[in-house]
Amino acid sequence: MKAAVLGASGYGGGETVRLLDAHPAFEVSFLGAHSKAGQMLGEVHPQLANSDRVLAPNGDIPDDIGIAFLALPHGASVHVARELVAKEIMVVDMGSDYRMDTDERYQFAYGEPHAYPDELSDWTYGLAEWVDVSGTNKVAVPGCYPTATTSALIPLAAAGLIDPSTIVVNSLTGVSGAGRKVAEPFMFGSVADGVSAYALGAHRHRPEIEMGLKLFANVEASVTFTPHLVPMQRGILSTCTAVAGEGVTTEQVQAALHAAYDDKPFVRVTDGPPQSRWAVGSNAVIISGLVDYHTGTVIVQGAIDNLLKGTAGQAVQLANTMVGLDETAGLPMSGLMP
Amino acid sequence: MKAAVLGASGYGGGETVRLLDAHPAFEVSFLGAHSKAGQMLGEVHPQLANSDRVLAPNGDIPDDIGIAFLALPHGASVHVARELVAKEIMVVDMGSDYRMDTDERYQFAYGEPHAYPDELSDWTYGLAEWVDVSGTNKVAVPGCYPTATTSALIPLAAAGLIDPSTIVVNSLTGVSGAGRKVAEPFMFGSVADGVSAYALGAHRHRPEIEMGLKLFANVEASVTFTPHLVPMQRGILSTCTAVAGEGVTTEQVQAALHAAYDDKPFVRVTDGPPQSRWAVGSNAVIISGLVDYHTGTVIVQGAIDNLLKGTAGQAVQLANTMVGLDETAGLPMSGLMP
Amino acid sequence: MKAAVLGASGYGGGETVRLLDAHPAFEVSFLGAHSKAGQMLGEVHPQLANSDRVLAPNGDIPDDIGIAFLALPHGASVHVARELVAKEIMVVDMGSDYRMDTDERYQFAYGEPHAYPDELSDWTYGLAEWVDVSGTNKVAVPGCYPTATTSALIPLAAAGLIDPSTIVVNSLTGVSGAGRKVAEPFMFGSVADGVSAYALGAHRHRPEIEMGLKLFANVEASVTFTPHLVPMQRGILSTCTAVAGEGVTTEQVQAALHAAYDDKPFVRVTDGPPQSRWAVGSNAVIISGLVDYHTGTVIVQGAIDNLLKGTAGQAVQLANTMVGLDETAGLPMSGLMP
Amino acid sequence: MKAAVLGASGYGGGETVRLLDAHPAFEVSFLGAHSKAGQMLGEVHPQLANSDRVLAPNGDIPDDIGIAFLALPHGASVHVARELVAKEIMVVDMGSDYRMDTDERYQFAYGEPHAYPDELSDWTYGLAEWVDVSGTNKVAVPGCYPTATTSALIPLAAAGLIDPSTIVVNSLTGVSGAGRKVAEPFMFGSVADGVSAYALGAHRHRPEIEMGLKLFANVEASVTFTPHLVPMQRGILSTCTAVAGEGVTTEQVQAALHAAYDDKPFVRVTDGPPQSRWAVGSNAVIISGLVDYHTGTVIVQGAIDNLLKGTAGQAVQLANTMVGLDETAGLPMSGLMP
Repeated sequence: MKAAVLGASGYGGGETVRLLDAHPAFEVSFLGAHSKAGQMLGEVHPQLANSDRVLAPNGDIPDDIGIAFLALPHGASVHVARELVAKEIMVVDMGSDYRMDTDERYQFAYGEPHAYPDELSDWTYGLAEWVDVSGTNKVAVPGCYPTATTSALIPLAAAGLIDPSTIVVNSLTGVSGAGRKVAEPFMFGSVADGVSAYALGAHRHRPEIEMGLKLFANVEASVTFTPHLVPMQRGILSTCTAVAGEGVTTEQVQAALHAAYDDKPFVRVTDGPPQSRWAVGSNAVIISGLVDYHTGTVIVQGAIDNLLKGTAGQAVQLANTMVGLDETAGLPMSGLMP
Repeated sequence: MKAAVLGASGYGGGETVRLLDAHPAFEVSFLGAHSKAGQMLGEVHPQLANSDRVLAPNGDIPDDIGIAFLALPHGASVHVARELVAKEIMVVDMGSDYRMDTDERYQFAYGEPHAYPDELSDWTYGLAEWVDVSGTNKVAVPGCYPTATTSALIPLAAAGLIDPSTIVVNSLTGVSGAGRKVAEPFMFGSVADGVSAYALGAHRHRPEIEMGLKLFANVEASVTFTPHLVPMQRGILSTCTAVAGEGVTTEQVQAALHAAYDDKPFVRVTDGPPQSRWAVGSNAVIISGLVDYHTGTVIVQGAIDNLLKGTAGQAVQLANTMVGLDETAGLPMSGLMP
Repeated sequence: MKAAVLGASGYGGGETVRLLDAHPAFEVSFLGAHSKAGQMLGEVHPQLANSDRVLAPNGDIPDDIGIAFLALPHGASVHVARELVAKEIMVVDMGSDYRMDTDERYQFAYGEPHAYPDELSDWTYGLAEWVDVSGTNKVAVPGCYPTATTSALIPLAAAGLIDPSTIVVNSLTGVSGAGRKVAEPFMFGSVADGVSAYALGAHRHRPEIEMGLKLFANVEASVTFTPHLVPMQRGILSTCTAVAGEGVTTEQVQAALHAAYDDKPFVRVTDGPPQSRWAVGSNAVIISGLVDYHTGTVIVQGAIDNLLKGTAGQAVQLANTMVGLDETAGLPMSGLMP
Repeated sequence: MKAAVLGASGYGGGETVRLLDAHPAFEVSFLGAHSKAGQMLGEVHPQLANSDRVLAPNGDIPDDIGIAFLALPHGASVHVARELVAKEIMVVDMGSDYRMDTDERYQFAYGEPHAYPDELSDWTYGLAEWVDVSGTNKVAVPGCYPTATTSALIPLAAAGLIDPSTIVVNSLTGVSGAGRKVAEPFMFGSVADGVSAYALGAHRHRPEIEMGLKLFANVEASVTFTPHLVPMQRGILSTCTAVAGEGVTTEQVQAALHAAYDDKPFVRVTDGPPQSRWAVGSNAVIISGLVDYHTGTVIVQGAIDNLLKGTAGQAVQLANTMVGLDETAGLPMSGLMP
């Protein structure tokens, strides 16, 4: 099937190209970009093979494409995604334009009404282990923080093991999570050897996390979310804390995680706390949880590669299911260490 | 005044030597070590000047010493600290042997009774901005995590702005926090480019944090504490979350911090969230807080250099006050960036 | 074909397992280890899928294996490699025991005679772009530094564009190049944020580089070789300098590189200097060269991933050819950025 | 003495402020900036104490200043430095405008004639261990690479132990060496975990290195210079190779280094190769050399902190001597590890 990648010059777009180049069923036949249109692929992604391919303007996407992967900044997918669907091209939107289920939640996260509020419910929010996208033609890929966080919390919230009104999430992300924007906060001199939190009490992924817990665990959650920037290229580790249900044990917590995930090829439940690098380079989610009996809280963690399971990997996983392939087709099962 | 550093071969000991070498009033006249006794200082700390000084066995400390800085592993200070005091040598213990106020708390943290439980109350727990050590002769330097964490929480707990039974602390530390132990978890290959939490629900600094809140804010706190190892050499950032008191505002939170610290030379209260590197290389604590009105929580953060304000710097600050000097004598006021 | 990996617990062994797990023709049916035999794969390589496989003692390798990959420390392959060959198992030795062509050179590098000096010439030194191993059954994989260095130098030496008696090589390696040895020089605290050279004038790879230039460019070279340890996980960049032949131009240098490599799938010749990360995560070699007309020297650089093209990737590339597959089978063509 | 820092918003300017704030004799009474004039010091250097000082336009420097430190980009000192001298203000220029001894050499490095070629010889090129600047009023601080490199080479070239026409220098620098420019090549995503060389055969510091060898060793040198960017904040390691003189031994090399430097407070000659971090945080130069008898070459290395001995530290060292203070006044003697 012919595939297009729009926004191929960014980090998420580059990873999508890399995955699709090695994929048994998709063939990359169009590479789109905005300001970098006209440049060779090798100029913007010197790590990619066949570096003499040329980036075209995003708008030049031809009609014979079967599936389009949109790796565009916030606000840039909202019109083009609809147009592609109208042309009967399947759309996997890695951006944030169609993730929210209601305009109210969209406004809460993004501060303004959606351009097509009535169409939000037509899109599937593709947290791949919790929704079946086979046969659908338009899917919104969850954000990176929400993927790591809700994957860890959903089984516990659904089983009533935690009080969803007391959730505190502290997430640590590699610098690639900020995208490829050239700005002083992301310079080596600003970032290396130090850590800081940002967007305290105000990150756009907080409402998305609460939505995920509503959609897949059917709870009304209150989430205090503090993301931190850490001096590493890739990886997210979400440490989630919540008041434990009465008498809840570590064994129950781990059992609920195993029950949810033992048949899922990309999710691994570990006994001890995961390291983010165990997941980096693969499409894995690694999860572990326990009860802190001293304080009566549950601590549960999720680790992913923000550019793979958090973006391009989950996009390909979803596309696989959309077109009827095995969900693991073409995706790395093992991470890269050291 | 003649000063001795015991445990001079470790990270904290090395920093103590560096600070004292540049100090206007203390003169390093004895360098002690355990397994590395007999080696030249330059073999174990090639960054230090006058590298041809030789490390002596810790036990060879002469009697003409005025003040001893103990940078020893847990359990190694318990006897020697008493013996030095008996010889009328002032003691600044950077280790954990005399930090706890009661044997009950000591047992809770360290799993066994203290050798001299009746003497615990003779030692001053030296969180330098909250206790006056002038005229005392034996001081226990607080741990690195407790210093960053309680410095941020005490003013808010004391003012009733947070519910102390709901505190969640997520701390991020540089690798030097683990000390100089040669072990696979601290290899470059194990640590660089990734993050992980450790000692979930079980870290020894949790009871110490609760003790600090009792001593200086007079509250009974419950603290869920999750430390994380981050790929940087130095620095701690503690992100503390707690349920806000009814109607509490960000302005009240910041005002309480300013009221506590505006006259303290090493503490800076900032409007936005601090970066750990703003403190690294100096004896500073940098603190900021706000209310997340959506969830009704307070988020307050503290950043320090774990080897300076978290160990050797606070030790020298305390020693300055113990002997009647200005507390800033010989200590770096500015951090090192980039 | 059934494959065995001996020394699967090390860095090179782990990467071999990762590559073979995703390979279309080889099936990993035996995982051997020495001191870590008996442990689960997930304990030593938590990043690998199917982590519940168990490491067996290296010596338990069964007879039905078709090909064995040896990722053993220096000296540990010398007997077992022969025994496997005697059992008609193909051997790809990633270690250093059978790399040298003569016992004289072996002694020069390793300081003692080889156990089976007469058999050295039976092994093929597998610098994959310069020798055809199809149909052979015992191949020694070149070292990581020699692969990066001789790949860059051979075309220029063979064409007479440089004076081989004046070669100066400065190589920069990631810390994984030191293997998985737990020792103070490879701790995060020792390595991060700094650089140093080691084994000045005495590294074992220097004679191997000179041998490669003899074997494939037919020149007697003199190489001053200085390796440097750099705070990154993976990657080698070799910067090679030599006196240029009379009147030699940058165009001639680049033309010789293109002529040698334009038909090689894993080698890319770039106009400007390569970054090591362009190659990391793939089996690529990236090379560029120019003339410094001011000093009359040629500067040529080669970049690789030390664990892939420098170890496990080249091993699989050679194995592919040995058994008649396309040399690229199962190998990553693109690197991983950021 | 009242001191001004022009260009205080950059990395070198910030370090100058930090050093002068802790200096016993200089008082920072003016902070100048160009595009960041009007901002608070704490906005551009959050690590510095007294962060509420305001940056003024560089041109507003008052007349009562005794000494001015110029931390300006190339080309920005050329006029202002003369004007300050005319006002009888002492000038320490950390920029590159007055480093060259002749207009010919200036043109060779910078590609255009100097604005005041006749005045170049009025400035002292302040390689502090090799020239006495006491009593002078205008000094150009050497570049960072030249400081690390010529410090290592001068004693050997002066003693005839190396052939100066065969020098190959490979330098490794931390990212702060590129200054505070916001550009994609210096983003964390571009730099971390990888290495690359730049400006091959064309770096402006090459002629300056050759000039240093002429000025202080009286040799006509030919230097092939390849700088590399390494993922660390600070530090330079220069590895210099040259053909050894007939019969030259390691003992002679080390003896020449010791003879040159044993009475210099900031230079340390070590037996083994230095790590860059041994110097980082201090004004030290660490040097070591040996003969590679196999190839008949000398390898000599120099390590410094590029922002201290390579910029701000050497500037203060020179200023100390200019005004008659001990050259070590206010300067850190020990580095910062880990």
